Amino acid sequence: MVQAYILIQTEVGKASTVAESVSKIAGVIQAEDVTGPYDVIVRAQADTVDALGRMVVARIQQVDGITRTLTCPVVHL
Amino acid sequence: MVQAYILIQTEVGKASTVAESVSKIAGVIQAEDVTGPYDVIVRAQADTVDALGRMVVARIQQVDGITRTLTCPVVHL
Amino acid sequence: MVQAYILIQTEVGKASTVAESVSKIAGVIQAEDVTGPYDVIVRAQADTVDALGRMVVARIQQVDGITRTLTCPVVHL
Amino acid sequence: MVQAYILIQTEVGKASTVAESVSKIAGVIQAEDVTGPYDVIVRAQADTVDALGRMVVARIQQVDGITRTLTCPVVHL
Amino acid sequence: MVQAYILIQTEVGKASTVAESVSKIAGVIQAEDVTGPYDVIVRAQADTVDALGRMVVARIQQVDGITRTLTCPVVHL
Amino acid sequence: MVQAYILIQTEVGKASTVAESVSKIAGVIQAEDVTGPYDVIVRAQADTVDALGRMVVARIQQVDGITRTLTCPVVHL
Amino acid sequence: MVQAYILIQTEVGKASTVAESVSKIAGVIQAEDVTGPYDVIVRAQADTVDALGRMVVARIQQVDGITRTLTCPVVHL
Amino acid sequence: MVQAYILIQTEVGKASTVAESVSKIAGVIQAEDVTGPYDVIVRAQADTVDALGRMVVARIQQVDGITRTLTCPVVHL
Repeated sequence: MVQAYILIQTEVGKASTVAESVSKIAGVIQAEDVTGPYDVIVRAQADTVDALGRMVVARIQQVDGITRTLTCPVVHL
Repeated sequence: MVQAYILIQTEVGKASTVAESVSKIAGVIQAEDVTGPYDVIVRAQADTVDALGRMVVARIQQVDGITRTLTCPVVHL
Repeated sequence: MVQAYILIQTEVGKASTVAESVSKIAGVIQAEDVTGPYDVIVRAQADTVDALGRMVVARIQQVDGITRTLTCPVVHL
Repeated sequence: MVQAYILIQTEVGKASTVAESVSKIAGVIQAEDVTGPYDVIVRAQADTVDALGRMVVARIQQVDGITRTLTCPVVHL
Repeated sequence: MVQAYILIQTEVGKASTVAESVSKIAGVIQAEDVTGPYDVIVRAQADTVDALGRMVVARIQQVDGITRTLTCPVVHL
Repeated sequence: MVQAYILIQTEVGKASTVAESVSKIAGVIQAEDVTGPYDVIVRAQADTVDALGRMVVARIQQVDGITRTLTCPVVHL
Repeated sequence: MVQAYILIQTEVGKASTVAESVSKIAGVIQAEDVTGPYDVIVRAQADTVDALGRMVVARIQQVDGITRTLTCPVVHL
Repeated sequence: MVQAYILIQTEVGKASTVAESVSKIAGVIQAEDVTGPYDVIVRAQADTVDALGRMVVARIQQVDGITRTLTCPVVHL
């Protein structure tokens, strides 16, 4: 199981609808609006790094209003 | 009361109209054009962090020509 | 109550000890190692933005090995 | 007369002492601690761009704890 | 002969089609999807720096879905 | 007299036409295509910082294909 | 098996010795000097994301002269 | 012949001495202090990309007070 934070930038004025839409995607644990260089921070999980990448590209990035996502996989050092 | 600087990037050629429009929004104290990585720097205030976030998303980001905003809340350490 | 994500960059080789030390600070809910432009992502909470700012400067930034922190307050839009 | 915002990054744990020291420099109008990618935001003025550049290098950057400054001159478009 | 890594950012949802299209361009050795601040990393080669620049602008940047490219020429120190 | 470097990012595939168009603007001394995070670097001059800001917004940013400009005034320390 | 590009920034003047040292680490396939925002680009592989994270922190970041690493795992979409 | 702009960040307070020292290096055409995210912008030339890379690492980066250099080769598209 791979977990990750996904830092999202949205089009102006779209942050709250993006957070709400992303929070309903399977594998997404939490999606919250934040201030700063990112607009929404998501916590998600998938079986593998490839599955995580596919979830980001095929599901999360399809949400209207997202301009950039930055995936940060959690590592257990 | 929460105060903040809001660093704004605009579409090319829109900096001065953005500054003028943003300066009329309730809660905005000052909005000025600058050179460098940002195009307009705004000083604003609201009752809470949530109210500040809502002002940025619901009022400032609705101004035509804004591409990114970066909210930097003032903290009293 | 204000909640925030704190994105941390560490000195090379210090990520895991930073995450472990930060996770013991009062107000820190979770601290995890990640890959990408940040090394540790922290979830924290405090009574106000000022208290959050003081926690970051007075407690988290005192942890040996941290070079930059980026505080992203959660907002409820 | 040239006015500018100066966005400052500090060493971890030094934000409040930097803001206090910078606020005493001639030509500095205001210096405040903020959260986000910058730690202190300064408002300053000088007679010319060259004088502003010299103030930043010769006075502000001499303050202990500053790691980077980013000068954004105000422009009247 | 000049070799280079080309770090590509794509529109959301376009990473895999970009990588596939870029991999067919003459001079491109490899094109792979990655997570993080970049979406696709390409390895390419050309006869000169100018030829490399032309390949990036005239061929790679013509691929639908690319928003930014960052060319990093390999140097032998 | 104020001189400045203006670091320009363009839409993909537009770098050379941008450089050519910008080089014809009054006050522009030189405009060249480069590789790296910027696509065109311009050397320009104007009577004052305000005049420089106006040249960037009213003339340079009107050139089709420019997405961001970063003005770096030359200072004599 | 997880593969990744690791984008490395080094202290000034250390790029070539860093590339040489990193290229000898088990799991590193290639390490080359580049120009641009990064100084060395590495191709590496490990059994899992966690093993990759440990290799970066425990082996690569121990190389003298490295100031930042940015790990970009390859994903198969 | 390869020409390049080299964008330099310096330690705080070192910009003018860095510009002066760099301007004396063989192959450097001009070195000027600027405000903004970079502190000194250099124009240089060398016979090849490799020679340019060696000049940056072996000569320019040896100048005391430089923390980062970003080389942007000029390309003729």
